[in-house]
Amino acid sequence: MADPWQDAMDHAVAVARRAGTMVRDAVQNDMKVMLKSSSVDLVTQTDQKVENLIIQSVTEKFPTHRFIGEESVAAGEACLLTDSPTWIIDPVDGTTNFVHGYAFVAVSIGFAVNKQLEFGVVYSCMEDKMYTGRKGRGAFCNGEALQVSDQKEITQSMVATEFGSNRDPEVVDKIFSSMRKVLCLPVHGMRGAGSAALNMCHVAAGSVEVYYETGIHCWDVAAAAVIVAEAGGVLMDVEGGPMDLMSRRVVAANCQVIGERIVKEIDAFSPERDDAAPPEKA
Amino acid sequence: MADPWQDAMDHAVAVARRAGTMVRDAVQNDMKVMLKSSSVDLVTQTDQKVENLIIQSVTEKFPTHRFIGEESVAAGEACLLTDSPTWIIDPVDGTTNFVHGYAFVAVSIGFAVNKQLEFGVVYSCMEDKMYTGRKGRGAFCNGEALQVSDQKEITQSMVATEFGSNRDPEVVDKIFSSMRKVLCLPVHGMRGAGSAALNMCHVAAGSVEVYYETGIHCWDVAAAAVIVAEAGGVLMDVEGGPMDLMSRRVVAANCQVIGERIVKEIDAFSPERDDAAPPEKA
Repeated sequence: MADPWQDAMDHAVAVARRAGTMVRDAVQNDMKVMLKSSSVDLVTQTDQKVENLIIQSVTEKFPTHRFIGEESVAAGEACLLTDSPTWIIDPVDGTTNFVHGYAFVAVSIGFAVNKQLEFGVVYSCMEDKMYTGRKGRGAFCNGEALQVSDQKEITQSMVATEFGSNRDPEVVDKIFSSMRKVLCLPVHGMRGAGSAALNMCHVAAGSVEVYYETGIHCWDVAAAAVIVAEAGGVLMDVEGGPMDLMSRRVVAANCQVIGERIVKEIDAFSPERDDAAPPEKA
Repeated sequence: MADPWQDAMDHAVAVARRAGTMVRDAVQNDMKVMLKSSSVDLVTQTDQKVENLIIQSVTEKFPTHRFIGEESVAAGEACLLTDSPTWIIDPVDGTTNFVHGYAFVAVSIGFAVNKQLEFGVVYSCMEDKMYTGRKGRGAFCNGEALQVSDQKEITQSMVATEFGSNRDPEVVDKIFSSMRKVLCLPVHGMRGAGSAALNMCHVAAGSVEVYYETGIHCWDVAAAAVIVAEAGGVLMDVEGGPMDLMSRRVVAANCQVIGERIVKEIDAFSPERDDAAPPEKA
């Protein structure tokens, strides 16, 4: 059967590559400027520029489609997933890496219809790796099929997670206590790429068995969730049960056994949901 | 003036590239075997094979030179730096990454004469990045000159460190308490490549301001120490003062200010030195 969303996915790949080239150029040419001045403004400039590029390009081709984009939401747009075809966009996933020129920076484009994720495209622009996943049709990196690790022993596993950007002592307590319990299971090692999308792509590629994090947003994980699932992996909540895209909590594992084992070590907490009602305007 | 060690350095670059190709081939072709069976033995096989390649190749060309190699020391050879020209070799830095196919795996070759490091070569074989440093003549990556970040504010900095492989609760306590204090300075972010040599090369390249770790060995840091210094960075002990190559403790920073600031947050401890006398044979 012909794929009704093939055109959209082809467009996502093409625009992710164009966007990634913009990001890579910004890292290579503007790095000194970014590091010397207020980095936050400059990053937002690139973020906005890249998100605008993607939204304009998609709108021209698919004028009825909707968007959830990190920068649009920051600018006040609602973060609500409807039944309409919706593009869920993180123009620069791994912002701190981007500012510092660290290797892991991605453009992330997910696509949902009837609230179900249909495809995901994650372009790791410094590495020039194009990860794609299409529901029911597999996951690939630069054309090569992805397959999760077949490891079933947590003590032989590599785990990915992040310290995150929240410095609230209660949150930091939970992040460190979870990390320590996981480390001392023991596991082979713990890594954090500094990009949720790429941590998940590493699960899909088999170099990491499981990734968990709380505090991420729907645009960080929507695209990579399809890639993980299509590579044979599983997605769940940090307390087990199905992943909720708007809950800001995710476990991506090579298999159910490893995912459930990690869940037991996580001290869960609940940031405000992505789809929480915005505050009333005064 | 002609460089008396130019031949040796050229040889180091050539053999690091050959060794890196062996490592990369092992990751790409033997990965499933490695992950399914006892990974430790198989890794040691590759480690030994690569170290033997390097030592044989150097010995043919420089028959009077000495070696300190991770695998040779593991096999019982002394880890003593004399005044003789000495090659300090880690055939596979980032062993856990190697087993899992994670991106950061390096061949590290340092070279000392009269106990002074003269040059260092670190080949990141999955990324195909050749880092080199020659005392007094600069540091390069794939031919491009390296320069540390000019950041002076720790709160604007990226920090690299590792959880390490020691699971002794007292050691884990110190590692976590140091990490927490550093994170909450606050800093922009914390990363761990899983390879000491590459963490240090990231300092040299400017994507990380400072790296610290306790528990590493002389072969993990000898080569990269030259690269950091020649890129304009500084090396020190985790309690401040000069780095001691055999102490298993290192801080590599873009500048003195950042290095000394990090030292204040580190809960120091002292693993057994690399040059401790080996136990008497019964």
